[in-house]
Amino acid sequence: MGKMDVGHIGEWKLIELIRAKLDLPSSEEILVDIGDDAACVRLEGLSLLTTDSYVQDVHFDPRHYNFYEIGYRCLACSLSDVAAMGGKPRFVLISLQLPPHTTVLSVEQLYSGLLELASKFDFRIVGGDTVRAKDIGLVCTVIGWTDRAVERSGAKAGDAICVTGELGSSSLGLHLLNLESQRPECAPFVQTHKRPVPRINEGRILASSQVVNAMIDISDGLALDLHHLTEESRVGAVIHYESLPINGELKALAEEYGSSPLDFVLYGGEDYELLFTLPSSEKDRIAREVEVHTGTRITEIGHIVAEKKIQLEKNGKLVPLPRRGYDHFRN
Amino acid sequence: MGKMDVGHIGEWKLIELIRAKLDLPSSEEILVDIGDDAACVRLEGLSLLTTDSYVQDVHFDPRHYNFYEIGYRCLACSLSDVAAMGGKPRFVLISLQLPPHTTVLSVEQLYSGLLELASKFDFRIVGGDTVRAKDIGLVCTVIGWTDRAVERSGAKAGDAICVTGELGSSSLGLHLLNLESQRPECAPFVQTHKRPVPRINEGRILASSQVVNAMIDISDGLALDLHHLTEESRVGAVIHYESLPINGELKALAEEYGSSPLDFVLYGGEDYELLFTLPSSEKDRIAREVEVHTGTRITEIGHIVAEKKIQLEKNGKLVPLPRRGYDHFRN
Repeated sequence: MGKMDVGHIGEWKLIELIRAKLDLPSSEEILVDIGDDAACVRLEGLSLLTTDSYVQDVHFDPRHYNFYEIGYRCLACSLSDVAAMGGKPRFVLISLQLPPHTTVLSVEQLYSGLLELASKFDFRIVGGDTVRAKDIGLVCTVIGWTDRAVERSGAKAGDAICVTGELGSSSLGLHLLNLESQRPECAPFVQTHKRPVPRINEGRILASSQVVNAMIDISDGLALDLHHLTEESRVGAVIHYESLPINGELKALAEEYGSSPLDFVLYGGEDYELLFTLPSSEKDRIAREVEVHTGTRITEIGHIVAEKKIQLEKNGKLVPLPRRGYDHFRN
Repeated sequence: MGKMDVGHIGEWKLIELIRAKLDLPSSEEILVDIGDDAACVRLEGLSLLTTDSYVQDVHFDPRHYNFYEIGYRCLACSLSDVAAMGGKPRFVLISLQLPPHTTVLSVEQLYSGLLELASKFDFRIVGGDTVRAKDIGLVCTVIGWTDRAVERSGAKAGDAICVTGELGSSSLGLHLLNLESQRPECAPFVQTHKRPVPRINEGRILASSQVVNAMIDISDGLALDLHHLTEESRVGAVIHYESLPINGELKALAEEYGSSPLDFVLYGGEDYELLFTLPSSEKDRIAREVEVHTGTRITEIGHIVAEKKIQLEKNGKLVPLPRRGYDHFRN
């Protein structure tokens, strides 16, 4: 049936196939799953709610991604929003917009991409819908749990500014993907772009530490997301250029392809790393805790200041860091 | 700013405008709303989760609906899914896919349509996203509450089959809208189509009565949704033609426009009335309770049988009721 298209088998048969593929175990927390008007689940405490649309030719070029990658990547980005609040994903709804000529196999591959994340981060896909559309669209809604929601708005003057992992690799990967480069040294960057790992485990440790004052995930680029965080917190920031965690290979490749590494690192976006602030005195202890439990490096890249300006310190000079990055309606 | 388009003001300014328009009151149940990575709310007990995509040219022809109507109608359809489980909507997320030339005024009108329902049914729009797309798309996610989820799968042989309100008016309204009829007697049907009222209050009474065995909302047409309900319940049904609640004016107009009224009543869809089953002995009591509290009429249209066949009884004869109605990939 894989080669048939969804227009041929129709909506109801497709829902049956998805339901079979999800193979939801009976559980105390899921009372009703896919196939009824709505799913019914048990939720307690603080629930995190987030939804995101991913649309063909805007968020992804279907020539460069297979359906597995589209599913994986789109859901990973939504999960990152839950990570940024310090939460753990529990239930996911998927709304699928598909051209009628899409094959059933493609839909199954897309769900395999979603299920890889469900298995890795221990959540369940409990519902959604599938509709006809001219372009492929995927809308992921994630319901998460937390004991403490870490907002963007709590940063305090004097806080250290830290990030998980490395910056710029994903957007360099996208750049290389668009250039259709086949060079082996490009592959790890393309891979980082296609298969981001949401920082769920890191976010949970940071939230439950009780000392992280503000957190956001870097989806629109360090510069723009730092503006978002400081604006909500009504503070400013100084970023130290020399401290930015940049892969050595990224510098070489960026320059070779005629771009400044900083374009990727500061303005590229889609890193899905966590950007957070905490009292300087706590930084070493918390960084160690995250590194021991997850293997992810934490880097201090600057500090929060009272004056509402964002500046980059490079070679001893302070220059303004422009409010520039990804805008859905302008890029 | 209303005449500006969203491509001009950009994503962040648009989010600010939406946030201001929603004007969320501070409350104990909403800890974080629009503007952070995810909303954070308190949920207890049984939560209902549903999401639906509405896509231009598939679910609505933008020539026939203004943005207020698009917002109202799309969200009403998602709320109907929560009603069909016997739930009350609590929180809503909106994912908006917009061509960059969409005016800011259009987005504000769309939100006015959403907010009419939020005010009427006492829920909050707490988050979402806005992205660029070629076509208009609206994805509504509703998180509801219930003390008892009424599934499709509980119908028992001998149960009375009942519906709220009247059938076929919405699909006749769509038919007339497409014909661009300006006759005054067409207006109420167009209105029913454009502004369906989700049966939230009726669904709550039916669920908390504890005697309703199965329930579904009629979105794909009585025939197809009855098939869905009986298949999940592993039973059959007999529907009495003479009992179907059909507006007298509908019969006249349908025949005048060369269609059989039954095409609208049985296969038309988008009624968003509730179809439910309960023991015959309870029918009168429950119908009275719904009518007294909501003013909505309940009609018994047939009964559940053990044999897995759906039949229509007309003039003393039983004929099979085909499994026909709205299919997202085939219509």
